[in-house]
Amino acid sequence: MLKASIVGASGYSGGELVRLLSGHPNVELEILTASSQQGRRMEESFPSLKGFSEHTLVAPDWQQLGEASDVVFLALPHGLSMAGAPGLLEAGAKVVDLGADFRLHDVALYREWYDLEHSAPDLLEDAVYGLPELNREVIRGARLVACPGCYPTAASLALMPLLRSLSEAGTDVVGTIIVDAKSGVSGAGRTATMGTHFSEVNENVKAYKLGVHRHMPEMQQTFGVLGSDAPVFFSPHLVPMTRGILATCYASLDAVPSQVEAQRLWQETYEGHPFVRVLSEGLPETKATLGSNFCDLAVRVDPEKQLVVAVAALDNLVKGAAGQAIQCMNLMFDLAEEEGLWQAPVFP
Amino acid sequence: MLKASIVGASGYSGGELVRLLSGHPNVELEILTASSQQGRRMEESFPSLKGFSEHTLVAPDWQQLGEASDVVFLALPHGLSMAGAPGLLEAGAKVVDLGADFRLHDVALYREWYDLEHSAPDLLEDAVYGLPELNREVIRGARLVACPGCYPTAASLALMPLLRSLSEAGTDVVGTIIVDAKSGVSGAGRTATMGTHFSEVNENVKAYKLGVHRHMPEMQQTFGVLGSDAPVFFSPHLVPMTRGILATCYASLDAVPSQVEAQRLWQETYEGHPFVRVLSEGLPETKATLGSNFCDLAVRVDPEKQLVVAVAALDNLVKGAAGQAIQCMNLMFDLAEEEGLWQAPVFP
Amino acid sequence: MLKASIVGASGYSGGELVRLLSGHPNVELEILTASSQQGRRMEESFPSLKGFSEHTLVAPDWQQLGEASDVVFLALPHGLSMAGAPGLLEAGAKVVDLGADFRLHDVALYREWYDLEHSAPDLLEDAVYGLPELNREVIRGARLVACPGCYPTAASLALMPLLRSLSEAGTDVVGTIIVDAKSGVSGAGRTATMGTHFSEVNENVKAYKLGVHRHMPEMQQTFGVLGSDAPVFFSPHLVPMTRGILATCYASLDAVPSQVEAQRLWQETYEGHPFVRVLSEGLPETKATLGSNFCDLAVRVDPEKQLVVAVAALDNLVKGAAGQAIQCMNLMFDLAEEEGLWQAPVFP
Amino acid sequence: MLKASIVGASGYSGGELVRLLSGHPNVELEILTASSQQGRRMEESFPSLKGFSEHTLVAPDWQQLGEASDVVFLALPHGLSMAGAPGLLEAGAKVVDLGADFRLHDVALYREWYDLEHSAPDLLEDAVYGLPELNREVIRGARLVACPGCYPTAASLALMPLLRSLSEAGTDVVGTIIVDAKSGVSGAGRTATMGTHFSEVNENVKAYKLGVHRHMPEMQQTFGVLGSDAPVFFSPHLVPMTRGILATCYASLDAVPSQVEAQRLWQETYEGHPFVRVLSEGLPETKATLGSNFCDLAVRVDPEKQLVVAVAALDNLVKGAAGQAIQCMNLMFDLAEEEGLWQAPVFP
Repeated sequence: MLKASIVGASGYSGGELVRLLSGHPNVELEILTASSQQGRRMEESFPSLKGFSEHTLVAPDWQQLGEASDVVFLALPHGLSMAGAPGLLEAGAKVVDLGADFRLHDVALYREWYDLEHSAPDLLEDAVYGLPELNREVIRGARLVACPGCYPTAASLALMPLLRSLSEAGTDVVGTIIVDAKSGVSGAGRTATMGTHFSEVNENVKAYKLGVHRHMPEMQQTFGVLGSDAPVFFSPHLVPMTRGILATCYASLDAVPSQVEAQRLWQETYEGHPFVRVLSEGLPETKATLGSNFCDLAVRVDPEKQLVVAVAALDNLVKGAAGQAIQCMNLMFDLAEEEGLWQAPVFP
Repeated sequence: MLKASIVGASGYSGGELVRLLSGHPNVELEILTASSQQGRRMEESFPSLKGFSEHTLVAPDWQQLGEASDVVFLALPHGLSMAGAPGLLEAGAKVVDLGADFRLHDVALYREWYDLEHSAPDLLEDAVYGLPELNREVIRGARLVACPGCYPTAASLALMPLLRSLSEAGTDVVGTIIVDAKSGVSGAGRTATMGTHFSEVNENVKAYKLGVHRHMPEMQQTFGVLGSDAPVFFSPHLVPMTRGILATCYASLDAVPSQVEAQRLWQETYEGHPFVRVLSEGLPETKATLGSNFCDLAVRVDPEKQLVVAVAALDNLVKGAAGQAIQCMNLMFDLAEEEGLWQAPVFP
Repeated sequence: MLKASIVGASGYSGGELVRLLSGHPNVELEILTASSQQGRRMEESFPSLKGFSEHTLVAPDWQQLGEASDVVFLALPHGLSMAGAPGLLEAGAKVVDLGADFRLHDVALYREWYDLEHSAPDLLEDAVYGLPELNREVIRGARLVACPGCYPTAASLALMPLLRSLSEAGTDVVGTIIVDAKSGVSGAGRTATMGTHFSEVNENVKAYKLGVHRHMPEMQQTFGVLGSDAPVFFSPHLVPMTRGILATCYASLDAVPSQVEAQRLWQETYEGHPFVRVLSEGLPETKATLGSNFCDLAVRVDPEKQLVVAVAALDNLVKGAAGQAIQCMNLMFDLAEEEGLWQAPVFP
Repeated sequence: MLKASIVGASGYSGGELVRLLSGHPNVELEILTASSQQGRRMEESFPSLKGFSEHTLVAPDWQQLGEASDVVFLALPHGLSMAGAPGLLEAGAKVVDLGADFRLHDVALYREWYDLEHSAPDLLEDAVYGLPELNREVIRGARLVACPGCYPTAASLALMPLLRSLSEAGTDVVGTIIVDAKSGVSGAGRTATMGTHFSEVNENVKAYKLGVHRHMPEMQQTFGVLGSDAPVFFSPHLVPMTRGILATCYASLDAVPSQVEAQRLWQETYEGHPFVRVLSEGLPETKATLGSNFCDLAVRVDPEKQLVVAVAALDNLVKGAAGQAIQCMNLMFDLAEEEGLWQAPVFP
């Protein structure tokens, strides 16, 4: 049994890690920490978990966490993971970071977008970007994995087949890639704010951080890894639901594939990847992924306008956070990739 | 491996049975039927189930179903189960009925409330009311189980400790027991109607069938089994959410227990019943049970007004339907009661 | 033109007062105050009001408010109105208080339930309870009106015909009156808290403050005015919508009227009261009152169980707060009761 | 007083016309028709309207409608308005069509997208496109107005400043204009379908009719009128709310204006247009327009990516349907443009 600990267990990603790991046959939960709810029992913070966790939330002690755990999940606001990760690694634990600190490889970019000096730049080289459909083999050997943001997960899975195929053909998207994403409110975390107050969010749709969201440079970086130099414009929107991201991604080409070719390309790309489902008909909807680690994809080609539109749906707390983190953990410890995650979505 | 078939697989209870049974280690799904969607694949009807079911929906053939299956789940509108059950039983299958046909023991009551002549009255004696917390041992030996309605499940679990205890003391509730329940919209099924049209139901709460809902005589029957002759008034309400029932139940007494005694009584009643969680603090909320087979309970005593208020929360499609049916199946086939059902609720 | 000012304009009741008064033909808005958002313009706090208010939110200055205004609306947390009202009245303004400070006539009751010593007990005698359907004539002559809480408005309008009629017949309800109410989240105000965080409230129903909500003694007081000594038990519930209250009220009698008699009694009681609509068929739904000052009512009699069930639906921010306050103002200043309020609900 | 009749009064646009016109000081409602609910009273179809309409729904009789009315509003599925409009006009009534039959000027385009032969092609020349911010003066003289679709209203208002300004400068958008819109469910009408069934739509976001929605050629036509030949790709999405459209529109340019210039351009374009509010800060949200005739706009320029992003929010049933139709009627009958429509949105 792997000993797993969670730093930041009182937030939504933390709760989701406990929910999923409590059913994982190869894991036992060791230490759960929370800075603001120390001393409370996990089931007080999450009444849903009554019967699934006897843990009391404690303050994080990096040394102790590292020694007591085979793997430590960090579910923290940015700036905090880079403080704790070095100690955990030194103490011999592997680290799966759900936060932003190790996603961007370039410290200057990190400084620019997060307005912070990176305190563990040496680790950036070791950090593997935890998108298994992109980096499965490298993740297997990693000791520090930086899981993608929820929006970049959706956008990257939607566009990976196209960008890789263009790159292989020595060409690229024309103009700007547009990612227009719609997210449920849980993506904003568990802290009560005016922007997540029920009466302000319910029966409402709005755009926010248009072109200035921190997930935009992360997408740009991944699209670069996939071989595209096209600029990305990212428009996040908040919709009145709890879970789910739908990303509608637009790319203009000089010469588009046919709809049939595109369909085949997307399907072939994800053969052997259990958690990406390329739909053979219909368009993705977030509800068909709720509570599960699946990302559902569809692609549409407009031959006249030379436009490819790729749509991704996922549950931001599972494939966009806790589920993907566990998928990475499975790879890091040579377990089956689906272990503990193979559950059908809850519908309706 | 048990061979299980589902009649009425294209409705919400049917879909939920497939979701849950697809992860049950002792079950394999044999035949899925649907009258209106014959020929479609299950994953077309439920895109969420892509990867979890290769089945094509077929027309129900009772003979074939009974021979091919160890157990057949019936998820049908009332009137249809009593037509199919006899053949299934004759062919040797056990039957778990999620519908209403075998819930009421009294054919006259069935006629009065369902406006139908019962076509299989002989089976009523064999039919066991599938509330495991009430009838666990009898269910073990049953070949035909009639699962409770979603509302009666909530109300019966809420009040069972009180009614049984009063009965043992030779007394009863004073006046009328009031059950005021609030349900999500999935309880109304998957057929599109004006009453379940999004724009009519969203941002809306309403009472319906006040005092004339068919689940009222079912509650009355169960309360009678528990030893109470007090009349029941049942008020169902529709609230703008998909899943969940919250039942607030009011009983006046001549002499109420103290809050501490009541708390102890509720807890002792459900010791050894894995799917009922008596909260030690706070009040139940439906969200803490979403997607799971749990029923969460709390009790409050008002000593001045001599009133006991018991509150139950559950997921109407799981503990109120498919989950409870599987819990019964586990008992009927000597499996662990939690098998295939021990999952933490999805929160938030 | 009446000069009206609003103390506490940045909350939901305050915003609703501005929305409604901006269309009132006899009112001009003078001063809008807010303690936490001073210096912001009203349209920054409520983007919906762009074009309807040029006001900047200022700190409350009681003297200035009283002198500049014919009427001052107080939309404040309890404890604050009783501090400001005396000065306003001295300066010659009339006061309509949407808060709790002047609702309970008994200072001991106020102390018990609000855990505060009342600082203006002398004014309690002058304060008129602002339920126009109960107190229309007294409100006309009042200089200080205490508007009912949102829940008591619903429960009182639902039960007024019954309680008054029983009292006239020299009898009363048997046992405890039960008020089971379901409220939208805006009733909890505009301050962001964990309990109103979208992801915690959405897809959720829960009971709260069972039998200990501060609106319970207020109901008890009004029922007493109507001639009933029966105890009241009040169960508030939170449902996932923004606006609306549905109150389902249960009263057992020794001898119930027939359904037809009850229907006639309810209709006759509210003849001449423009904002109460007694439904001739169907049951009330909150959505049919959204954005309007209407309270919709229905009554059901169960002759066998000797039970009367009365259901009320209203918009908690209008008939439950700002609209009712304006209705009172209209009476206080000899305007037509409907002035500025005669708008059809927004449906769907 | 203008005599106004409504054909198709039992649908959402019809109900909204009654809601708004019942408060219009210059209008009295004459005849309300409905094909499916004949003989029912309007308040039975819309309980919200109890007290606002005494009308009984009747079958449409074009001759009678035309003679009895100064203006007839058609709120009908496509194909039906073109059958009725000629008779109404002949009888002397003016016609405001909320449907699609007279929006496209080109019968071939109509045939292609609506799969119907146009039966009144002669009227297409007379029909004025009812977007007052584009066609105010022509609408004043019109006898037949074709109100824009809800999506084209949002997209056209969002992009009008840009497209007109580019055209004046003799240039155009580079590549394809992308309109990514998010709509509440009421846009799909009042007929209950699987796609609008609460449990399927709630907690869900999905794209539909990607690049094949009938509002796309309508946008293309309006953009052409504004001087742009750029192709349009339109992506509608369904979000779990009742009312509201948010349209996020993307246009790449050879040379973008500065943010300040763009802000000024948008503001100047809508000076004197009472129902378009260009936000000076923040981004539009649908909730700030609920129940009102406002369209809120914002524009963002990305100078590096040479991209202009314009965002529009409106209530699809008001500015996107009934409200805009009344705005047109006001112009056609020389009333103030705001008459009967100057109401603050309902927030929250």
